[in-house]
Amino acid sequence: MSEKIYIFDTTLRDGEQVPGCKLNTSEKIELALALEDLGVDIIEAGFPISSPGDFHSVQEISKIIQHASVCGLSRAVKKDIEVAAEALKYAKKPRIHTGIGTSDYHIKGKFNSTREEILERAVQCVQWAKNFVDDVEFYAEDAGRTDNEYLARVVEAVIKAGATVINIPDTTGYCLPSQYGAKIAFLKNNVPNIDKAILSCHCHNDLGLATANSIEGIIHGARQIECTMNGLGERAGNTSLEEVVMIIQQHKHLGFHTNIKTTQLNPMSRLVSDTMRMPVQPNKAIVGANAFSHSSGIHQDGFLKSAITYEIINPKDVGADTSKIVLTARSGRSALAYRLKNLGYECTRNDIDTLYERFLQIADQKKEVCDDDLHAMAKQHQRIEA
Amino acid sequence: MSEKIYIFDTTLRDGEQVPGCKLNTSEKIELALALEDLGVDIIEAGFPISSPGDFHSVQEISKIIQHASVCGLSRAVKKDIEVAAEALKYAKKPRIHTGIGTSDYHIKGKFNSTREEILERAVQCVQWAKNFVDDVEFYAEDAGRTDNEYLARVVEAVIKAGATVINIPDTTGYCLPSQYGAKIAFLKNNVPNIDKAILSCHCHNDLGLATANSIEGIIHGARQIECTMNGLGERAGNTSLEEVVMIIQQHKHLGFHTNIKTTQLNPMSRLVSDTMRMPVQPNKAIVGANAFSHSSGIHQDGFLKSAITYEIINPKDVGADTSKIVLTARSGRSALAYRLKNLGYECTRNDIDTLYERFLQIADQKKEVCDDDLHAMAKQHQRIEA
Repeated sequence: MSEKIYIFDTTLRDGEQVPGCKLNTSEKIELALALEDLGVDIIEAGFPISSPGDFHSVQEISKIIQHASVCGLSRAVKKDIEVAAEALKYAKKPRIHTGIGTSDYHIKGKFNSTREEILERAVQCVQWAKNFVDDVEFYAEDAGRTDNEYLARVVEAVIKAGATVINIPDTTGYCLPSQYGAKIAFLKNNVPNIDKAILSCHCHNDLGLATANSIEGIIHGARQIECTMNGLGERAGNTSLEEVVMIIQQHKHLGFHTNIKTTQLNPMSRLVSDTMRMPVQPNKAIVGANAFSHSSGIHQDGFLKSAITYEIINPKDVGADTSKIVLTARSGRSALAYRLKNLGYECTRNDIDTLYERFLQIADQKKEVCDDDLHAMAKQHQRIEA
Repeated sequence: MSEKIYIFDTTLRDGEQVPGCKLNTSEKIELALALEDLGVDIIEAGFPISSPGDFHSVQEISKIIQHASVCGLSRAVKKDIEVAAEALKYAKKPRIHTGIGTSDYHIKGKFNSTREEILERAVQCVQWAKNFVDDVEFYAEDAGRTDNEYLARVVEAVIKAGATVINIPDTTGYCLPSQYGAKIAFLKNNVPNIDKAILSCHCHNDLGLATANSIEGIIHGARQIECTMNGLGERAGNTSLEEVVMIIQQHKHLGFHTNIKTTQLNPMSRLVSDTMRMPVQPNKAIVGANAFSHSSGIHQDGFLKSAITYEIINPKDVGADTSKIVLTARSGRSALAYRLKNLGYECTRNDIDTLYERFLQIADQKKEVCDDDLHAMAKQHQRIEA
């Protein structure tokens, strides 16, 4: 029996916070519709109190989305929650996402407050939100650095107040996977009413661990992952949607599944990158331009004999172009023969030996040997042989 | 007592394999010198048999590097090893890195061979290499998908043959952190002569787990990490040097240290990106342009009250520009006041309330509100007040 992991996409909220990624309402609607089509369960559409433009975007997305839940962010402030509820008024499945910092860094440094006072404010914000919607998600900001005993008390109290989903953010991207997994396990084991809510992972990538932390989270009992396309988000970004989804798909022994149509991952990645004007580096997992390119001779030779030697995901499964055999000075004879054959040249082993010497001379001068170079090489060789 | 983790940089070999990243000899020398200066312990300089150009680069790097080991890659082929040894002739600390695929996918799909035959070839390649250099690293290609019992037999045999370092590559980027950690632990516990060699992690990032896997590897007994600047490498790339180094530094309780001068990480990242013509995405951990940018109102407000609320690494510690407070429609009053103050405007709370309305109007129209906008806003406000 496989258990469902809910995919909570925050590209339009945590992703859109990124410098330069600001979207207008029509761009946000276009992305929201594409995210729904991708199979996302919850779309965090924005932070309605933050600006009139963002309020308007959340409202318009609420009107148009049919199946996914639409979520609006708020602080633990009455006005924030009222405005979020207003923006979500037309949503078929509205969710208010409210909460407060629970680490001592936040309690002291940001709020100049006490643990008891913050606990009260946490309960209060959930109660306020429950006046407007059934589905209330509570975030314990900086949970990654929050004392587990205190965090358990907060979580128990907000579930009692009606929270349906509890978000455990590693806000600063600090946790090791073992630490984050242990935190989720602690809550599962020490919060008496924990089964009345869904635990959610919201990890940041400041140390490159967001994906691993989210996976450790679900292994230890969380059932929702908050993520963005291409890993966009504050600072080094959030968990990459495409990475967690494909880990769950590749590692079926974990016993999880998601609702994501994986063949749309690459088109979705490009749409987000183009609309938000944020380039994806070529070596990005799943959606980078080189994610399925083989360039070293050893890899190309193995790949051509049997794709599974160097490829665990079929590029078609994630909507990427077919695997590429790129010819560089690290390529071997088998890759050269393969590419020549694709261009229509039947070569004997002797032909390839001769051509390979010439190929290396060209390759040592260039970054990549292209089809034109191969045609020129092959034609010259044919003339000499003839 | 903190244990040293050896940093084995393969930017010039696994990184340089990437389509478009091909370097000429003088570029490779420039990067090798910068890597030595960064504090890398081992520089994998290239794959000498692959092309005359790469042979030349490895030879020139061998002549010039003073303190780091210089390593050349080879297959388990006599000619490869001889050529690698020749290229490394002038190195002060030469290392030959040789090996063979040990997973059944590789044994059957690539070599059409048997486990026993591959075991023999593994031992033989180490023996050949030992004729030329003392320091021989063996790689068990696709160790990530290799049966642990068989892998342990191979490792024991190559250590007996004189291998000083044993590389356990997750060649296809398949392993979960728990699986990779368990593999290293299995070898530590089941190979009788394991303490005569250093275990090395070489992880690929196809599922976004390379960094987490490498850290699990050292937690379970490995003492070398193979990595590249900016995570460059085949397909989705290798483990990012900057990420593993900063995890080791941030999580001192793990009991490890490296020799890396972390303040050079950002300059080194830019040098590699410029020389290899490979952009780093803005949301890349540690070295991305946005890694230390704060843009949401909640974060900016917290950060301005106490940096540690949202920042675990001081940007100066990794040679990055100071933290940025970027003004967007998600920014709040405190960020606006901070930036206006930096521009020389002393504002009362009432001033800020008035200016903030105007600010949001501008911010909803633009991606980012810049200094010129702020000057215009402030000057207009001063005129009205006067």
